[in-house]
Amino acid sequence: MTTSLTVHQVRRPQGLPTPADFAFVEEPLPSPAEGQALVANAYLSVDPYMREAMADNDLHAPLEGRAVGRVVESRTPSLAVGDVVAHRHGLRSHALVRYEEVRVLTVPDRVPLSAYLGILGGTGLSAYVGLKRTAELRAGETLFVSAAAGGVGTAAGRIARLLGARRVIGSTGSPAKARHLTDHVGFDAAFDYHDGVLSGLRAAAPDGIDVYLDNVGGDHLAAAIDVLRERGRIAWCGAVAQYNDPDNPPPAPYNLYDIVGKQLRLEGFLVRHNLDLRDELEALIVPEIQAGRAVSDETIFDGVERTVEAFLAVLRGDNVGKMLVRV
Amino acid sequence: MTTSLTVHQVRRPQGLPTPADFAFVEEPLPSPAEGQALVANAYLSVDPYMREAMADNDLHAPLEGRAVGRVVESRTPSLAVGDVVAHRHGLRSHALVRYEEVRVLTVPDRVPLSAYLGILGGTGLSAYVGLKRTAELRAGETLFVSAAAGGVGTAAGRIARLLGARRVIGSTGSPAKARHLTDHVGFDAAFDYHDGVLSGLRAAAPDGIDVYLDNVGGDHLAAAIDVLRERGRIAWCGAVAQYNDPDNPPPAPYNLYDIVGKQLRLEGFLVRHNLDLRDELEALIVPEIQAGRAVSDETIFDGVERTVEAFLAVLRGDNVGKMLVRV
Repeated sequence: MTTSLTVHQVRRPQGLPTPADFAFVEEPLPSPAEGQALVANAYLSVDPYMREAMADNDLHAPLEGRAVGRVVESRTPSLAVGDVVAHRHGLRSHALVRYEEVRVLTVPDRVPLSAYLGILGGTGLSAYVGLKRTAELRAGETLFVSAAAGGVGTAAGRIARLLGARRVIGSTGSPAKARHLTDHVGFDAAFDYHDGVLSGLRAAAPDGIDVYLDNVGGDHLAAAIDVLRERGRIAWCGAVAQYNDPDNPPPAPYNLYDIVGKQLRLEGFLVRHNLDLRDELEALIVPEIQAGRAVSDETIFDGVERTVEAFLAVLRGDNVGKMLVRV
Repeated sequence: MTTSLTVHQVRRPQGLPTPADFAFVEEPLPSPAEGQALVANAYLSVDPYMREAMADNDLHAPLEGRAVGRVVESRTPSLAVGDVVAHRHGLRSHALVRYEEVRVLTVPDRVPLSAYLGILGGTGLSAYVGLKRTAELRAGETLFVSAAAGGVGTAAGRIARLLGARRVIGSTGSPAKARHLTDHVGFDAAFDYHDGVLSGLRAAAPDGIDVYLDNVGGDHLAAAIDVLRERGRIAWCGAVAQYNDPDNPPPAPYNLYDIVGKQLRLEGFLVRHNLDLRDELEALIVPEIQAGRAVSDETIFDGVERTVEAFLAVLRGDNVGKMLVRV
């Protein structure tokens, strides 16, 4: 390859973005300056949170995003050709990076590189921080996860099982995805939220839930407050429904005051302030991947030129598992 | 005294209760049956939470409420004449109790009996549990308390100081009560919420707050979410504004989603599930009372026949400190 392909944002979207909000820019392969290295990306991560950034991103400039790749040229002694790195300079085929901007990965045998954007990356770490640190999920407890078929949701299902959860319940956007969760991701129950969040959750959790990992807010949060047992915990890591319309957030739950009577805890967390748990996550997950007992659930689109398509699909919730672009 | 005076609820109030919702019943002094003791109450506690119970209380029956008094007649070996006890069989001049229903108090020198309904009772324990266990208030932090001139609020102000809070801020319902809080209860700043909750809080806490002890909900909760610093904690122990109109709770805060971005924690608690902290509270407060450095802030009405008057006053927020009736 002698050229690089980079995704730019060229307009501010109203509501759901469209392909016309983006442009692909092809340029000659850049050369690293002193202190830089050139990385050929292998996988790019497309995530719902990027929608929020589109309100502030510079226009006609490369979009930021997480990626993993290999160093192909280096002018820094800290990075050698062949090093595998994770960085935030996607969405593009190649990136110029400095050592301080990357995380050099030691990839064990039988662990796919893509896992470092999925269950071993920020996606899996979001699930792990929410369940382990924020909600303090304990063995024998029942977990409810919203947006369960997404990257964080599928990782949460697998991690909860490893933490000893007795029952794992998910909500998702179609009967097919619900079936996928129970048939292939190890959920005990899953339902299509279009049929009713509260009724679906009540049917799936007749004895209540102990922990809710909230990726949604709105009516899901209200239903969880209804069904949570005394001293239940909610780990709140995002509100997908809100990214497309930040000026009209979903109404706060009508039953918020039940937090007092049931002694519930509602706590927000940001994965970037919890990176110290990364080693613990890897120690938990890597042996499981190597033994074939946990997988990094993925939907992969091939080619940088499909990045926008993949991003729009993740915003519509078309993916099952982590949405990735293979360069 | 050869008769007892008991307060009954005779109607279900709509909105703010009125005197016509209650009746005083005078009866001959009861005699304890085998296993019972007769307690002559010294102080009765009237509290906002009782309004909520008025939806379910039996009509034409004695109202429950916390009281302290002395055993005057006993037919149980576990209670002796002269024992000082706390119990939940107010609101009345005399109560028949069983040993299992009371807490026998050992009242140290120079500690007034009324303190066991105030800063050493459920009121003070609410403040202590909220600050120490739920919000984990640490030395050097800034605290905001709503309904600050009430029993829980004034106790919170004094307890926060003992826990090393750097700055204590309160909201209350009049300029006179705000002045009282800064002049006599040790608050660093206090404001009348009628002048604007958010503007008052911002002016009092230009550097933000770390902990909010919420007695109110509604716009106070939204303002606190706005002003809380990263990783701030909200201990939620009630919503006074809601007791009079449970079918129309105040709207949940518009900015609830900021709990994620600021990594806040909102947690409810019930004092009755945290009685294990009672000894710790006494160990902290008793020496302060004995040294004259902490007082149990009180508003006292004299005579059981003024119980309804005192209760209506506490619902209007007329009291400063804990509202008590002296029998």
